[in-house]
Amino acid sequence: MKLYMPTKVYSEKNCVENHSRELAALGTKAMVVTGKHSSRINGSLEDVIGALERERVPYVVFDDIEENPSVETVMRARALGIKEGADFVIGVGGGSPMDASKAIALMMANPEHDERLLYTKAQVSAQGPVYPAFPVAEVPTTAGTGSEVTPYAILTKNVLPDIVLTTVPGAAAQGAFSHLEKKTKQSISHHIFPALALVDVSYLQTASRSGCIHTAVDTLAHLIESHLNTNTTSYSRIYSEMGLRTWARIKDKLLRYEIGEEEREALMRACTLGGMAITHTGTSLPHGLSYPITCEMGLPHGKAVGIFLPGFIRNYGDQEEVMKMLSLLDFGGVQPFSEYIRQLLGEVSVPEELWERTMDEVLANPAKLKNYPFMLDREHLQLFR
Amino acid sequence: MKLYMPTKVYSEKNCVENHSRELAALGTKAMVVTGKHSSRINGSLEDVIGALERERVPYVVFDDIEENPSVETVMRARALGIKEGADFVIGVGGGSPMDASKAIALMMANPEHDERLLYTKAQVSAQGPVYPAFPVAEVPTTAGTGSEVTPYAILTKNVLPDIVLTTVPGAAAQGAFSHLEKKTKQSISHHIFPALALVDVSYLQTASRSGCIHTAVDTLAHLIESHLNTNTTSYSRIYSEMGLRTWARIKDKLLRYEIGEEEREALMRACTLGGMAITHTGTSLPHGLSYPITCEMGLPHGKAVGIFLPGFIRNYGDQEEVMKMLSLLDFGGVQPFSEYIRQLLGEVSVPEELWERTMDEVLANPAKLKNYPFMLDREHLQLFR
Ligand SMILES: [Zn+2]
Ligand SMILES: [Zn+2]
Repeated sequence: MKLYMPTKVYSEKNCVENHSRELAALGTKAMVVTGKHSSRINGSLEDVIGALERERVPYVVFDDIEENPSVETVMRARALGIKEGADFVIGVGGGSPMDASKAIALMMANPEHDERLLYTKAQVSAQGPVYPAFPVAEVPTTAGTGSEVTPYAILTKNVLPDIVLTTVPGAAAQGAFSHLEKKTKQSISHHIFPALALVDVSYLQTASRSGCIHTAVDTLAHLIESHLNTNTTSYSRIYSEMGLRTWARIKDKLLRYEIGEEEREALMRACTLGGMAITHTGTSLPHGLSYPITCEMGLPHGKAVGIFLPGFIRNYGDQEEVMKMLSLLDFGGVQPFSEYIRQLLGEVSVPEELWERTMDEVLANPAKLKNYPFMLDREHLQLFR
Repeated sequence: MKLYMPTKVYSEKNCVENHSRELAALGTKAMVVTGKHSSRINGSLEDVIGALERERVPYVVFDDIEENPSVETVMRARALGIKEGADFVIGVGGGSPMDASKAIALMMANPEHDERLLYTKAQVSAQGPVYPAFPVAEVPTTAGTGSEVTPYAILTKNVLPDIVLTTVPGAAAQGAFSHLEKKTKQSISHHIFPALALVDVSYLQTASRSGCIHTAVDTLAHLIESHLNTNTTSYSRIYSEMGLRTWARIKDKLLRYEIGEEEREALMRACTLGGMAITHTGTSLPHGLSYPITCEMGLPHGKAVGIFLPGFIRNYGDQEEVMKMLSLLDFGGVQPFSEYIRQLLGEVSVPEELWERTMDEVLANPAKLKNYPFMLDREHLQLFR
């Protein structure tokens, strides 16, 4: 088993200011990557720019990262970064800018490559990665993805149906079938750990009720899916156990949305721990099932994942392990857990046709099944909804 | 608060063989640093050499590391390493070769400096440490120090009494008072994280009963001293809590020395977790008090530390925290803990005169007091014995 968690994390009020020197030391010109709005409202963007200015490190801001960032956006940001001569990237915001920042850092460091590099199998030579990325720092402003400590970068990309790819590969590459493309979410093939994560819970304060709940459920899913996973080890459980215990402490308050200073800190800590946990194991079926639903129904990531958690644990192949996991969360059993999630997220109905297609996709994709330690057929997966 | 644990850890049977490529990738010629005997008996040295040979990486072996390695030994090893053109260091064995390997890697990378560099305040510029060390890998063969994941390197060095240093500094530097020198143990001033830790519990199998117990108590001390520490945080407690829970599972078997496969694995895991915990907090008074006693009475490190654990927790300034810590270890209170330690280590009596001097030294050294969160005077420290 392996433990590898190289990101240096500072988690405290004013950490962007306190550690501006280490932030600035990552390179000679920064590319700050963020979305249009929230990082301006919660003060995180201002703090990052202030830190860079104090350290006299020039920077350029790309503030056009959308929810579920696309490969195209990454390539646009890369073009700006190269033009401006930036040599490190700072992601500021939720999972979208943080994930995008890693992909942008990879593409900026490999200017001779086009976007196909993102999904080209990462090669590692004796001297390290063949395609190294520029250094990355992350400043999270939501408590959800844990992207500030993971090497993952999930982008939305257009893909052709398998039938086209396998029958007419040449024509497909030339874009002849682009009208058949559909969107999917997938992590890039390269593992890019942020060098630095600056976690200041103050930036969370402007989150909305539903935003807070959905991101908290995403964290919960990371912890559960890592804990009940083919790749779980005593090392990954250092993080998932502590994260589950931390989440347990705020679960009742989250239901009543009594979220003060202390609860925000616990959520943020659980989130970072969830990131550390999935860094070691990856996620499992609730995440795998969520992507088509996010893309087509437009549900927020945490909600789309959360609706599959009750089915996942109810039908998981080792109920003893499930009960141990639930006791870390301070739930007496699967039933109270399921009711809790339903209360938190409300009823969500996935249209039958979309659900059938989602199951087809997951069952046809070995990568989505490999983290589930048991055999899985359609009949069994049916129960996860 | 900060989390930084950059060492990549593989913990599994045959990990030296399984990850030989990553080991070899650390440089172009290896310096293997070990002691005279145990690494030959338990097979670890052979495995390391086998891995290097398979990867066709040349190497030189320095097998003259003693218990409590000295600055002189580090300098002899450095000379060999430079002569042979080695550019990375592999420590194989217990805490002594692992600690020495870090100091040697520092000195080899800075050939123009003499041994004073070891205890010169480490400087960090925007581009990283001013005195970087060569890459280090560690292959532990005892479950005690956790040195495979810490940035610490404790060496035995000769020091002059303060009175000489402050009154005649020039003459002291020229060695005029070397007959007044005495030995002390101190970590070097530079923080050197191993790049790689290859933890194979098989190498533990030849440990003796007392060796096993003393190293296990060292691990326990790391966990306790990190958990009850000025620098303890939710992040350091990720490691100390999990380590204490892991230690709890073997504590009764250790007393009866019923140490099989499963117990060795738990000990090794607790040891690595203890290393990760003290990486974030440092140790506290039991370690501080132990060094003079180790140097003068020749007690093994774990035993010298362990005799102060009952006094430390009995007199710690926050008994609520102590009770929470003891419950992680599955002890009902301070009394059963103290009895357990006495049974495990036997009675040890520290001569009155040595104890008085030890207290003087600790009380005169702010560095040894700063990790204890409460005021400490002689009367209070007296109770720790
Ligand atoms: Zn997620
Ligand atoms: Zn120790």
